[in-house]
Amino acid sequence: MAKKKAAAKKPAYSKKIEQALADLVIANRILANEGVIDAFGHCSIRHPENPGRYFLARSRSPELVERGDIMEFDLDSNPINADGRTMYSERPIHGRLYKSRADVNSVCHNHAHSLIPFGVTGGGIKPIWHVAGCIGHDVPVWDIRADFGETDLLVTNNAMGDSLAKTVAKNRTCLMRGHGAVVASHDLKSTVFVAIYLMANAALLKEARELGQVQYLSDAEVKLTEQMNFKERSQNRAWEYWARRAGFKTAVNV
Amino acid sequence: MAKKKAAAKKPAYSKKIEQALADLVIANRILANEGVIDAFGHCSIRHPENPGRYFLARSRSPELVERGDIMEFDLDSNPINADGRTMYSERPIHGRLYKSRADVNSVCHNHAHSLIPFGVTGGGIKPIWHVAGCIGHDVPVWDIRADFGETDLLVTNNAMGDSLAKTVAKNRTCLMRGHGAVVASHDLKSTVFVAIYLMANAALLKEARELGQVQYLSDAEVKLTEQMNFKERSQNRAWEYWARRAGFKTAVNV
Amino acid sequence: MAKKKAAAKKPAYSKKIEQALADLVIANRILANEGVIDAFGHCSIRHPENPGRYFLARSRSPELVERGDIMEFDLDSNPINADGRTMYSERPIHGRLYKSRADVNSVCHNHAHSLIPFGVTGGGIKPIWHVAGCIGHDVPVWDIRADFGETDLLVTNNAMGDSLAKTVAKNRTCLMRGHGAVVASHDLKSTVFVAIYLMANAALLKEARELGQVQYLSDAEVKLTEQMNFKERSQNRAWEYWARRAGFKTAVNV
Amino acid sequence: MAKKKAAAKKPAYSKKIEQALADLVIANRILANEGVIDAFGHCSIRHPENPGRYFLARSRSPELVERGDIMEFDLDSNPINADGRTMYSERPIHGRLYKSRADVNSVCHNHAHSLIPFGVTGGGIKPIWHVAGCIGHDVPVWDIRADFGETDLLVTNNAMGDSLAKTVAKNRTCLMRGHGAVVASHDLKSTVFVAIYLMANAALLKEARELGQVQYLSDAEVKLTEQMNFKERSQNRAWEYWARRAGFKTAVNV
Repeated sequence: MAKKKAAAKKPAYSKKIEQALADLVIANRILANEGVIDAFGHCSIRHPENPGRYFLARSRSPELVERGDIMEFDLDSNPINADGRTMYSERPIHGRLYKSRADVNSVCHNHAHSLIPFGVTGGGIKPIWHVAGCIGHDVPVWDIRADFGETDLLVTNNAMGDSLAKTVAKNRTCLMRGHGAVVASHDLKSTVFVAIYLMANAALLKEARELGQVQYLSDAEVKLTEQMNFKERSQNRAWEYWARRAGFKTAVNV
Repeated sequence: MAKKKAAAKKPAYSKKIEQALADLVIANRILANEGVIDAFGHCSIRHPENPGRYFLARSRSPELVERGDIMEFDLDSNPINADGRTMYSERPIHGRLYKSRADVNSVCHNHAHSLIPFGVTGGGIKPIWHVAGCIGHDVPVWDIRADFGETDLLVTNNAMGDSLAKTVAKNRTCLMRGHGAVVASHDLKSTVFVAIYLMANAALLKEARELGQVQYLSDAEVKLTEQMNFKERSQNRAWEYWARRAGFKTAVNV
Repeated sequence: MAKKKAAAKKPAYSKKIEQALADLVIANRILANEGVIDAFGHCSIRHPENPGRYFLARSRSPELVERGDIMEFDLDSNPINADGRTMYSERPIHGRLYKSRADVNSVCHNHAHSLIPFGVTGGGIKPIWHVAGCIGHDVPVWDIRADFGETDLLVTNNAMGDSLAKTVAKNRTCLMRGHGAVVASHDLKSTVFVAIYLMANAALLKEARELGQVQYLSDAEVKLTEQMNFKERSQNRAWEYWARRAGFKTAVNV
Repeated sequence: MAKKKAAAKKPAYSKKIEQALADLVIANRILANEGVIDAFGHCSIRHPENPGRYFLARSRSPELVERGDIMEFDLDSNPINADGRTMYSERPIHGRLYKSRADVNSVCHNHAHSLIPFGVTGGGIKPIWHVAGCIGHDVPVWDIRADFGETDLLVTNNAMGDSLAKTVAKNRTCLMRGHGAVVASHDLKSTVFVAIYLMANAALLKEARELGQVQYLSDAEVKLTEQMNFKERSQNRAWEYWARRAGFKTAVNV
């Protein structure tokens, strides 16, 4: 019933937008398949033609997300085409990052396991590895308790989203104490890339610390490797690989 | 032969009960697929219409459990419809928890790997992460040796089940020294949820301890996150995801 | 060509033996599928009707072993029906354990990853967990260098096999420094069971040591849990589970 | 379009070379399937009939590489048959190792996770295990910063390739600080073998160090085990196993 109504009222999107939404579905599955996201977590894109809007799935595990689950929201996270669909309660994470950061066009919120221990022990994640240059020199830690006291740790209103966005500041990544992390980047593919290597870097950094004194990437190396990470060739090579692993057989644009 | 007799004598259950048993089969497969349970361990539900009874599979690995394997027991763990089927020797874990805790409608006993090291080193598991608020402030450790001396560590009679239930007390989770753990919650889906995040929290807590001083969830955060964990939306999102991963393709009620 | 000859000269085995060989194929696949064995390692059974003989695959990775790969050997590890097939160079591990231990009817040699670190740091594996009671109170470590000096660490002749068997002594398990482990038990299913839980116990013991002071199973608990581990019900439940995971769909005898 | 031109201009290779290229495709998939390589990393062979040339895939994730992706290069890493295909920027790793080492006929560059922590903490990998004898007594660490200062860590020109080759020297393996590793061996199968066990040995060495004082293989044991590792029987057994796991069903030459 709800589905029928949704179909009836669905905005007629351009071919360009439909392509972006198809990629968003792929991104959801990649993030689930690579272990960044489990039952929870979500990934969005800014509307390619209307910077005051973003696209995010209805309340559903990312591995199961299909085109029909994608909804449109304004930057206050009000739904444009709800049609009775249940929504993620944490969509203000997305809305407020898009509002505060004109350079951000895709956001991923996740609970990747390797990040949790860093989030509850004061952080300290830095890239040790060329593919992780893109996570940035430092990964700040946001603690919801600082501004909002005792909560269920979810970012469920715009004030919370603004507070988180303030800690994210100009960074591409941020941990959330006792909860997870957020990744905000210039496009969808880079967001997936950063989310996957943020997770991998955390696991390897923990191991490195246990082995001895760690040589982190230098400031210049971080800058140079992040430029390299975001080259079209690197991005496409990784995207094709992850998409195939996630079950998308058709050749992607590489 | 035994199977034929079983078919003949099988109680005629209501549609509601058959739906609950179908979910119990799914829960068995989810727990196996997510690594909570291997060849051993089991999961039960209280009879939805008769609080003096519970349902549990015959002696079989959870990953293989089918509808025809589900048996009915009274709270002393006597079978109602054995029909020659072999039974788990540890069913008193279930019977005595149902007897002592009117609020418990589902029980899972498991040997999830990340829990074993905590059980043999004095415990100390506490939630560090919002999805683990549901495990409770503390996870007690029951040692069968305290009441029963040298044993094979199995909970094979009602006295042992009572002793375990006494340590579980009002908690939702409890470790068993040198053996595993028990999860007891208000319904089947929440039991599966708690079992999975108890396992994940233990693994991440160990890592966090190795990184530094751990910030656990505060008492208030535990209360607030467990309320949030048990909301229908959270439970259904996770259940749909885990059921699909375990091979149940048909849409569940979400 | 070689295969045709093999078929022509194959001894005509009884139905009982053929069943045992079918189970040996399943055991090979289970051990590979559960991660006990990778490209290397092997598993054998004593001839059910002739204690002076044993069955072991030709030189092939266990995951790929089929009925046609199984060869018969005497206790000096001479082939009875080679038919040009290449043999494992380490078959004396099997021959000499069968020779020295009338109670042993199945042997598994493996390089399970969790065992290697213990083998090169002096051992110390003891059961911490009821399903690992079957590995025995202690797991000795054999170092080929003690009797044979500098070698490639392989057990390639009967003298080496005798030396290893002397260290195994009356135990069911033994580590081999810089190499792997051996499991020797009263039948095939128990050998698979012990191999899997020896591997799991080592991984969990390492974690437990990192958490704090470890409570091992007491001597009496080891005895009582190993009796429990080897009950037919336990063995069959685990075997059915592992066989199904390894792709054997047909119901096993449970 | 590019593909059509490629087909038209493709050199006519001998049957022997086509067989070698088919094996190179298998090697790419094995390395991906065993976790040595993810989206990035690559594996090459020297031209079997022309030592001044080598074969390497176009810029594509190894798991997806097909016969049509394989390109031919000279030792300065100029393409012989580019046909518009995008190339790996790090092909000088391959070219300069072939140029400096007449005994090397296959090279693998990878970012296997277990190696990264060693590369940023001063190295120290040595074989602890007979299947890892082939990695050599020592695994040197190359730091691109020593000769080239601040970079994006990629080996993108011949001078960088020469510098790396100088550190590799006569070894079969070398770590690259903040980046990954290189394996250079006498043929394709041994390169795959060394890459897989270099990765496994690093993970197990870390665990062993955490358990206590590590007994490494002695110098003589390293020599004897590497001879043993490279015997045709060992190589073929492992290759058949890994190829089957990677989805190549047809029997290989064993």
